Amino acid sequence: MSGTPNEFALISKFFGPLATHPAALGLGDDAAVLTPRAGHDLIVTTDSLTAGIHFLPDDPPNLIAAKGLRVNLSDLAAKGAEPLGYLLALALPRHCDSAWLECFARGLSADQKTFGVSLLGGDTTATPGPVTLTITALGQLPSGTMIRRNGARPGDGVYVSGTIGDAGAGLAVLKDGLIAGADADHLIGRYRLPCPQLALGNALRGIASAALDVSDGLLADLGHIAEMSRVRIILESGAIPRSPATTRVWPGLEGILRAATAGDDYEIAFTAASEASAVAAGVKAGVRVTRIGRVETGQGVVLLDADGRELRVEKPGFTHF
Amino acid sequence: MSGTPNEFALISKFFGPLATHPAALGLGDDAAVLTPRAGHDLIVTTDSLTAGIHFLPDDPPNLIAAKGLRVNLSDLAAKGAEPLGYLLALALPRHCDSAWLECFARGLSADQKTFGVSLLGGDTTATPGPVTLTITALGQLPSGTMIRRNGARPGDGVYVSGTIGDAGAGLAVLKDGLIAGADADHLIGRYRLPCPQLALGNALRGIASAALDVSDGLLADLGHIAEMSRVRIILESGAIPRSPATTRVWPGLEGILRAATAGDDYEIAFTAASEASAVAAGVKAGVRVTRIGRVETGQGVVLLDADGRELRVEKPGFTHF
Repeated sequence: MSGTPNEFALISKFFGPLATHPAALGLGDDAAVLTPRAGHDLIVTTDSLTAGIHFLPDDPPNLIAAKGLRVNLSDLAAKGAEPLGYLLALALPRHCDSAWLECFARGLSADQKTFGVSLLGGDTTATPGPVTLTITALGQLPSGTMIRRNGARPGDGVYVSGTIGDAGAGLAVLKDGLIAGADADHLIGRYRLPCPQLALGNALRGIASAALDVSDGLLADLGHIAEMSRVRIILESGAIPRSPATTRVWPGLEGILRAATAGDDYEIAFTAASEASAVAAGVKAGVRVTRIGRVETGQGVVLLDADGRELRVEKPGFTHF
Repeated sequence: MSGTPNEFALISKFFGPLATHPAALGLGDDAAVLTPRAGHDLIVTTDSLTAGIHFLPDDPPNLIAAKGLRVNLSDLAAKGAEPLGYLLALALPRHCDSAWLECFARGLSADQKTFGVSLLGGDTTATPGPVTLTITALGQLPSGTMIRRNGARPGDGVYVSGTIGDAGAGLAVLKDGLIAGADADHLIGRYRLPCPQLALGNALRGIASAALDVSDGLLADLGHIAEMSRVRIILESGAIPRSPATTRVWPGLEGILRAATAGDDYEIAFTAASEASAVAAGVKAGVRVTRIGRVETGQGVVLLDADGRELRVEKPGFTHF
């Protein structure tokens, strides 16, 4: 990692122990050197999180760090890649204290063990703005097997892992305190700490025709598959899997619409020609996989109600601008 | 690159044309897939720039973009790597206009042609803070030939490319208008648009025992080599190469101290056992290389005056915290 004397002290104290992979060169070299396994491609992806936009400024620092790492691992998961490591660019306000940083590093350390990755390098800078972390994750997979967004074909089924809307409902609970108790804790946990579906992504190589992780909202994200694959995606609103807690916070058809347009779930949405293979991949990964629609010729994403009528959606997902 | 509908429009309009490498998958897939040449290692590095810290908020956007790219290419240069491409995470204030973005993308486009690299992917987000760009650059070099920071040995000479202090003097001119005319333009240009020493880095593989790029200040940066290599570095203040313009802005011994502790030059400082080889590498790359000191046993960096007396340095370089 780069930095000047004081930063170096911070870096070596809190981040040095995270550089567990030889490729990181102990963070002393401001660059990582690595080579994918023979017959493998390297997959690289980057995502930023900013306080006040992607997390709440008073969220626990260990969870902010873990979320930053996990949203990037989730991108790798959706491609079918096995994660190798990550670089961290951290912009910190000058008043940021050592206890905050220590807790932040602890969050990374715990997740490194969970997901088998290492810090490979990075950059620590001061900012007059909010805390911003940019993580670049690197992974590998057998050459030519990356699951792209442009492979959906008419006749494919559309599937999603887990349940949809939990993170958005969790954010709503955090902001408005709509419910309390175990359901609230579950939803807030889903918002703060997404779980990258790495095992499912791995199992979907050769099975999914297109995939991505649900970050901006199910409808918006499937819109990317529809656009890149030049197909039309038809979703049945009643089939979208929701947790009991989310249904409690957001009931009825309006609730389904909210769940389908809320972001941050980091489930994998994918298309596949074979329903049996899609379900088998879920079983192999120990993850619930639900069929929620089909691919047709045409363009765009359409959400149908129980009577097969097209529902009007004002805003399919989160937009920054 | 990732993003939601409006971001996608921005991305495809301004950044889509920058994804010239097949590995970028046209930015449609939120990840890049690449493989280093056989027998080569992949080198990865990341650096952030924040408005008000690393550049002035009203700097021309094309130059901000180019600087962001070049400081990362400079890291690759110091390792001896050939650049392949980069990922861009861009945090933008909501009021950022389309003309600003267009100019920013134009700066990247011009530099992509200059340095033979491609945008490979990225992330565009909104921030309530200042513009922040984080670039992750990827390069390659023959396996095992990366120039590290820990290889300096007692008896080696210490060298630096180009002239030192120009960027710092340029920033001083921008802030205080100390001088005007061609000299001022030259220095401001050096601050705004560093030139990564890629040809020299390439020529130094197998010759330099340790190297890095001068970003935080010559003394501070050589301090990293001293620390990582566990050696003492002795510099002769009179040998530090300065441009006539910098000498005009910062005259005398005080000026040398300022030049040696100012950052942003992005020259390569390195150690080498053979002076003839060090000079030859400079000739091969068409870059001036100056011997500025020697490596001894011990620790730290020492700056000597013309009489061989140790100069006291209050602050060897830029610190963020």
